[in-house]
Amino acid sequence: MILRDPVHGLVSFESAEQAIVPALLESTELQRLRRIRQLGLTSLAYPGADHTRFSHAIGAAHVMTRLLARLRSLHDDLPYWQRVTSERAREALSAALLHDLGHGPFSHLFEEAMPNGPHHETWTERIILDPGTEVHRILARDDPGLPQRVAELIRGRSSLTYLARAVSGTFDVDRCDYLLRDAHATGVSYGTFDLDWLIRSFRFGVESKPGAAPPLAIDGAKGLTAIESFILARLFMFQQVYFHKTSRASEWMVTQVFARVRDLLLDGTDVEAVPSAVRNIALHGDASLGEYLELDDVKLFGCLASWRAASDPVLRDFASRLCERKLFKTYELYAEQAEPNARLEAYATAKEVARAQGYDPDIYVGLDVSSDVPFDDTYEPLTVVFPDNTQRRPADVSFLLGRVRGQKLTRVRLIFVPELREHIVTALMR
Amino acid sequence: MILRDPVHGLVSFESAEQAIVPALLESTELQRLRRIRQLGLTSLAYPGADHTRFSHAIGAAHVMTRLLARLRSLHDDLPYWQRVTSERAREALSAALLHDLGHGPFSHLFEEAMPNGPHHETWTERIILDPGTEVHRILARDDPGLPQRVAELIRGRSSLTYLARAVSGTFDVDRCDYLLRDAHATGVSYGTFDLDWLIRSFRFGVESKPGAAPPLAIDGAKGLTAIESFILARLFMFQQVYFHKTSRASEWMVTQVFARVRDLLLDGTDVEAVPSAVRNIALHGDASLGEYLELDDVKLFGCLASWRAASDPVLRDFASRLCERKLFKTYELYAEQAEPNARLEAYATAKEVARAQGYDPDIYVGLDVSSDVPFDDTYEPLTVVFPDNTQRRPADVSFLLGRVRGQKLTRVRLIFVPELREHIVTALMR
Amino acid sequence: MILRDPVHGLVSFESAEQAIVPALLESTELQRLRRIRQLGLTSLAYPGADHTRFSHAIGAAHVMTRLLARLRSLHDDLPYWQRVTSERAREALSAALLHDLGHGPFSHLFEEAMPNGPHHETWTERIILDPGTEVHRILARDDPGLPQRVAELIRGRSSLTYLARAVSGTFDVDRCDYLLRDAHATGVSYGTFDLDWLIRSFRFGVESKPGAAPPLAIDGAKGLTAIESFILARLFMFQQVYFHKTSRASEWMVTQVFARVRDLLLDGTDVEAVPSAVRNIALHGDASLGEYLELDDVKLFGCLASWRAASDPVLRDFASRLCERKLFKTYELYAEQAEPNARLEAYATAKEVARAQGYDPDIYVGLDVSSDVPFDDTYEPLTVVFPDNTQRRPADVSFLLGRVRGQKLTRVRLIFVPELREHIVTALMR
Amino acid sequence: MILRDPVHGLVSFESAEQAIVPALLESTELQRLRRIRQLGLTSLAYPGADHTRFSHAIGAAHVMTRLLARLRSLHDDLPYWQRVTSERAREALSAALLHDLGHGPFSHLFEEAMPNGPHHETWTERIILDPGTEVHRILARDDPGLPQRVAELIRGRSSLTYLARAVSGTFDVDRCDYLLRDAHATGVSYGTFDLDWLIRSFRFGVESKPGAAPPLAIDGAKGLTAIESFILARLFMFQQVYFHKTSRASEWMVTQVFARVRDLLLDGTDVEAVPSAVRNIALHGDASLGEYLELDDVKLFGCLASWRAASDPVLRDFASRLCERKLFKTYELYAEQAEPNARLEAYATAKEVARAQGYDPDIYVGLDVSSDVPFDDTYEPLTVVFPDNTQRRPADVSFLLGRVRGQKLTRVRLIFVPELREHIVTALMR
Repeated sequence: MILRDPVHGLVSFESAEQAIVPALLESTELQRLRRIRQLGLTSLAYPGADHTRFSHAIGAAHVMTRLLARLRSLHDDLPYWQRVTSERAREALSAALLHDLGHGPFSHLFEEAMPNGPHHETWTERIILDPGTEVHRILARDDPGLPQRVAELIRGRSSLTYLARAVSGTFDVDRCDYLLRDAHATGVSYGTFDLDWLIRSFRFGVESKPGAAPPLAIDGAKGLTAIESFILARLFMFQQVYFHKTSRASEWMVTQVFARVRDLLLDGTDVEAVPSAVRNIALHGDASLGEYLELDDVKLFGCLASWRAASDPVLRDFASRLCERKLFKTYELYAEQAEPNARLEAYATAKEVARAQGYDPDIYVGLDVSSDVPFDDTYEPLTVVFPDNTQRRPADVSFLLGRVRGQKLTRVRLIFVPELREHIVTALMR
Repeated sequence: MILRDPVHGLVSFESAEQAIVPALLESTELQRLRRIRQLGLTSLAYPGADHTRFSHAIGAAHVMTRLLARLRSLHDDLPYWQRVTSERAREALSAALLHDLGHGPFSHLFEEAMPNGPHHETWTERIILDPGTEVHRILARDDPGLPQRVAELIRGRSSLTYLARAVSGTFDVDRCDYLLRDAHATGVSYGTFDLDWLIRSFRFGVESKPGAAPPLAIDGAKGLTAIESFILARLFMFQQVYFHKTSRASEWMVTQVFARVRDLLLDGTDVEAVPSAVRNIALHGDASLGEYLELDDVKLFGCLASWRAASDPVLRDFASRLCERKLFKTYELYAEQAEPNARLEAYATAKEVARAQGYDPDIYVGLDVSSDVPFDDTYEPLTVVFPDNTQRRPADVSFLLGRVRGQKLTRVRLIFVPELREHIVTALMR
Repeated sequence: MILRDPVHGLVSFESAEQAIVPALLESTELQRLRRIRQLGLTSLAYPGADHTRFSHAIGAAHVMTRLLARLRSLHDDLPYWQRVTSERAREALSAALLHDLGHGPFSHLFEEAMPNGPHHETWTERIILDPGTEVHRILARDDPGLPQRVAELIRGRSSLTYLARAVSGTFDVDRCDYLLRDAHATGVSYGTFDLDWLIRSFRFGVESKPGAAPPLAIDGAKGLTAIESFILARLFMFQQVYFHKTSRASEWMVTQVFARVRDLLLDGTDVEAVPSAVRNIALHGDASLGEYLELDDVKLFGCLASWRAASDPVLRDFASRLCERKLFKTYELYAEQAEPNARLEAYATAKEVARAQGYDPDIYVGLDVSSDVPFDDTYEPLTVVFPDNTQRRPADVSFLLGRVRGQKLTRVRLIFVPELREHIVTALMR
Repeated sequence: MILRDPVHGLVSFESAEQAIVPALLESTELQRLRRIRQLGLTSLAYPGADHTRFSHAIGAAHVMTRLLARLRSLHDDLPYWQRVTSERAREALSAALLHDLGHGPFSHLFEEAMPNGPHHETWTERIILDPGTEVHRILARDDPGLPQRVAELIRGRSSLTYLARAVSGTFDVDRCDYLLRDAHATGVSYGTFDLDWLIRSFRFGVESKPGAAPPLAIDGAKGLTAIESFILARLFMFQQVYFHKTSRASEWMVTQVFARVRDLLLDGTDVEAVPSAVRNIALHGDASLGEYLELDDVKLFGCLASWRAASDPVLRDFASRLCERKLFKTYELYAEQAEPNARLEAYATAKEVARAQGYDPDIYVGLDVSSDVPFDDTYEPLTVVFPDNTQRRPADVSFLLGRVRGQKLTRVRLIFVPELREHIVTALMR
């Protein structure tokens, strides 16, 4: 199987060990990802961001083929049981391809909107382990233990530390693909990094205890720039895309919608056109796998369209605004305004304004805090290995990483119904 | 309004005359294009091709801003009434933005599937002229004649020949944007041409009769390569994307589905879940504007999903295969095999095989002929104007255009149900 | 050895069989290519075109590593003696790296200017075979037969047909690199093609006689577009860059300069500051290898600078004009003007004008005809191999190649001293 | 004049006020920049880095045309005398084009190698103001005051603060072009930033005192990412290219060569083939303009070639090593090793090793400290202006700039003759 990908160019899965990829791609569970946009509602802010999790899954598997080739060019010094065998390659490729299988509609947004339901990682695992799914059957066809091992690997568990980190770590194949893909689709060129160079920068580090497989490490000063550039690309994507005001505002609105639906259902009020998965998660915290797999972006847009005529006025109002793209507005708080106390004061002010104007402040005003630690080496103690075999922590030898390590990026915004904009801005300027 | 576009980078509509663009973008009729993929089912072949007509509409308007700037840098020699006034710029921008407004689900595919209904151009015109649409109200707000003039311009009618050609001609803003956008989304780098250079290559030609506005012309030998490259980019996109076997096969299947639905309805058989626009077009050749605007990709995918359980077995079978991506296969006929008689023979052979294997040959086998004339200068007599003011036809001075002018590219394929593949290939090889 | 290349990104020669590349790169004969611009005087027209044959040599070797990897992924079906062994890989890499070693200053221009001297291919062979060169010593270090085999391969002779074609054929590594590199440096984006896809498109064809190694062939319809795109990229580069009027005019001037130097020397007139290689080639048709290797762009620019004060007035005039970039002008003849008789008439007219204005027409007016056959499959009978193992000629299955096969692109221009421009244009318009 | 640039694509200077650019481009002083590589000896590390200051000069003028267009789209609110008139545009374009005119061979390296001579800024000014240069005559042709005003502007002096900063400031047109151009030529993709977005991000700030022209400022949060990305691109270029070990080592060697030449000349020893500019600067700290303009890369490479046969053994040795690319090696000191005391200790150790091995430590060992402050807002107090007209310092609202502001990037390396490598590494590891 060869295909053309807008991010990676020529993508091929032609060898025997790669045959699992085209096989899995035909499964209905993977095909479902064609109906789930990678970036949820971000296309409201970036008109090009209509790409789906399906193309991302292929891209992640492609990055894995390249990473495996790099590791194999280096693994001759490892004992045989620590090398990348065909069997392990098949596991790694499957894990890369399937790692996002459990995502709900609008990607991350669904689990934020329904916080009492299972996380997407749980759904991924269920799909892989459930003997009723096509994905499971394809994996288990030649090797009944494969579903279990793939699920473990996706959780970041493997006797081969380096493989676990390649699936789930600071520089995993998931991030490698989604950063490039999101940058390509949004046109945010800052989000690009040099994948060739990054992959060439990996080497085996020193095992933590005798007999253990070595971790992934960075190859000398040459590799350092590759990871700096990766970390910064990620930071830029957070700033420009993932934390974009329009995305955040619309996502907040969707969260409010689902909170409302849940409250209504828990109150015993009937809501029209609620998919059974949503109903069951709202009421019981879980749903059947079949119900869950029915959900996708199309289905949820359908719900929103129906709810424009809901009997509940709040649900009706939010659904209408979302469908007609009359989105809530934001006001960003900077520097001293964004300090914990100051932001609460600003929030209180905005709510007061809402009340004075006749809007329920708990429904029509929100405080949105988004944050990320761009480079955190607490959990994955990466090292840079120099030609003389000395090892150092990246933050000790990188100007940039030394300055951002462990630092938290925070964006603080008020979100409110557009009708309140001038009132709130005026009140805050006082 | 400024935004980031993956194809053009920074896109801005900030001047007074450009204010019509952000205003129109908010209309529900334009927002509907967010739910219509630019390339129909092509994402089945190119996983990145999920971009929508909404982003294309913005792109076409952006190309128009650039083209207008070029024309204005040149129009000082024209009499005042032939220049690009603000009023005309507003018309041109609106026409660029709205030219595809009437597209149905899966873009061109819908009108091929329902050939007795109005064409998308007719729907575009209805949307613009119907006083009930938001688009109409926004256009007419300051200038009641604007809807009519925009509709005329989209049809390629204007007293300013050069403006008419910019909206609808060999190098119109529609093509300029979609070639680049489709190339970007599919990753087919061959489809790229140099837009900056193309726009710089335009100049005014010599008017055809006294008093008439001059046509668009090409500026000397420097401009020639820009148009060669454009024509070839288009040819490559046809070969690689628009005529891709997987797209053609799936589109043929969709066409079969709608033909079947229509036949059933005309026979008086009831079909489940048929949108009223489809029903009315099938039965009466037309539908109301409101019905038509209900249609989009989401809606049609919903129909296909419902028809997996249709009572008609053919409808059920095709819908299931489409939903599960069990697509029909193709066999391309080359050179002497593709000659008119030979292709009909091959088609007959394939049908015979189908019959022998128990498949209805009229339903399960098709002959698909796709063709395009990459460079046809019959209708738009373009000229290249040289520094000494001599004019020549592009095909007379271009090595490439001289060789492809008026030539027809044709791809001929048999399309058939996968179960017949080996039988048909064997029969044809005999 | 890993390095960063502006065209190919990460370039690495790290395996044992690749170690010959960094070794050869240190030789003075290869380092000399740092002082020879790839495109001669083209930077007069394209300010970015300052790249050298040194970077091109590395690029060609890099493309060879990729091509070898592709061939190896396919050669399991070949008998052992036809496969790409390490020994053959070393030969192929050396040939790719060294194929241009014999180029003189201003690349191709030098041999055009001194047509009675040896061609650059001869110089390449001499450098490789001469035991006194560093290149020879490095090649012969481990394998005394290597210099001879590398020289053979560069001449396109090898028992492995496919390897011979990879070094010298329609799609050889030389062209693959220089097209991309020249496009990158000039900014002529039309000159780009998809190298990944091209390399993936190669497969082994059917051997011409029993026991012979198979030729390179194209893999089905998927490969066809890659070669179309390559052929067109090459055509565009010829049109836009290699046949650019400013390059042609300045190259013609340099040719006149060297013809003059040769005439003076043959007449027994002394010319100042003539490098011994130039003197000996002019007088005797050859020079010693040591003399030849002294020549590079820097040296020739030095000569031109000196000749601004030459005693011969013609030499003085041309050298001054070249140094001060007061280049000759061109007038392109199109269509019927370019027909053999018409062009001679135009040339005669221009010469007459020169005479009337007091300029020696044989010195100050030239007729420049540049031509190329973009796709000629006479000498290398390429085939496209389809999935059903049928073979066809590219021109039979490609719309474009069918139309340009064997066709000659010709550009015809008058070249003349700037002072004559208006007179000549007026005379020709009559 | 239109031309194709590999960095900016289409570059045009076609309007009346831009006519000064093609006129100046013909001057011998600008044409001399064709013979001065932008990055000195960097092509020893990055084979593609052969681009010249000539193409950079054109690029800087192009960026200025774009910046002027942006400023003009905003200047309607300014009093007439603060606007960008045609006269000022001509000054600004000339300043952009000519700002690097005074660079010596190998660019910055020459002035480092001859620290007692005038800086390149002084030479630039002399060329512009000297009535004997072609540049001066062209500038003064229509406006005798223009040379003076252009020279002032290049020094960053103008009554229009924003124009002064555009020629010489944190985001000046010089940096905008060279970062992109160096990234393009080296292939260091990290060095790219979004020029379109950066230019769109500029707006006028608040004047510092009544009546003064406003400074350049940044337009809200949208502009912030553009400048972050610019600052980081610059930082990456420093890390990867400008501070590359091979460049630094070879530059250090050249500096040693010139120091040696100077010492010899001051001692009264004659040195062969010394250009008169070098001799006079060495002996008297200055040279005539004519002498200086004789210098270029070609000339200096010629000197190095001659000095391979110099009578002074040190000069002979360094020149030979440079010509044969037998460069000195480096050993980078990281983290605690790079602390001031530790680095001096390491330097002392290395010198001791040299002495023990019979090399003069003052000649064959060096300590190279390169440093840069990536973002320093002390001298140019930039502000970000928000929609509500509040102003903030970039470092107060940018996560990244807040963390790097005023911080110094330092790379510390030992440089030594290759023969000492193992000895020094061993001694340091102890």
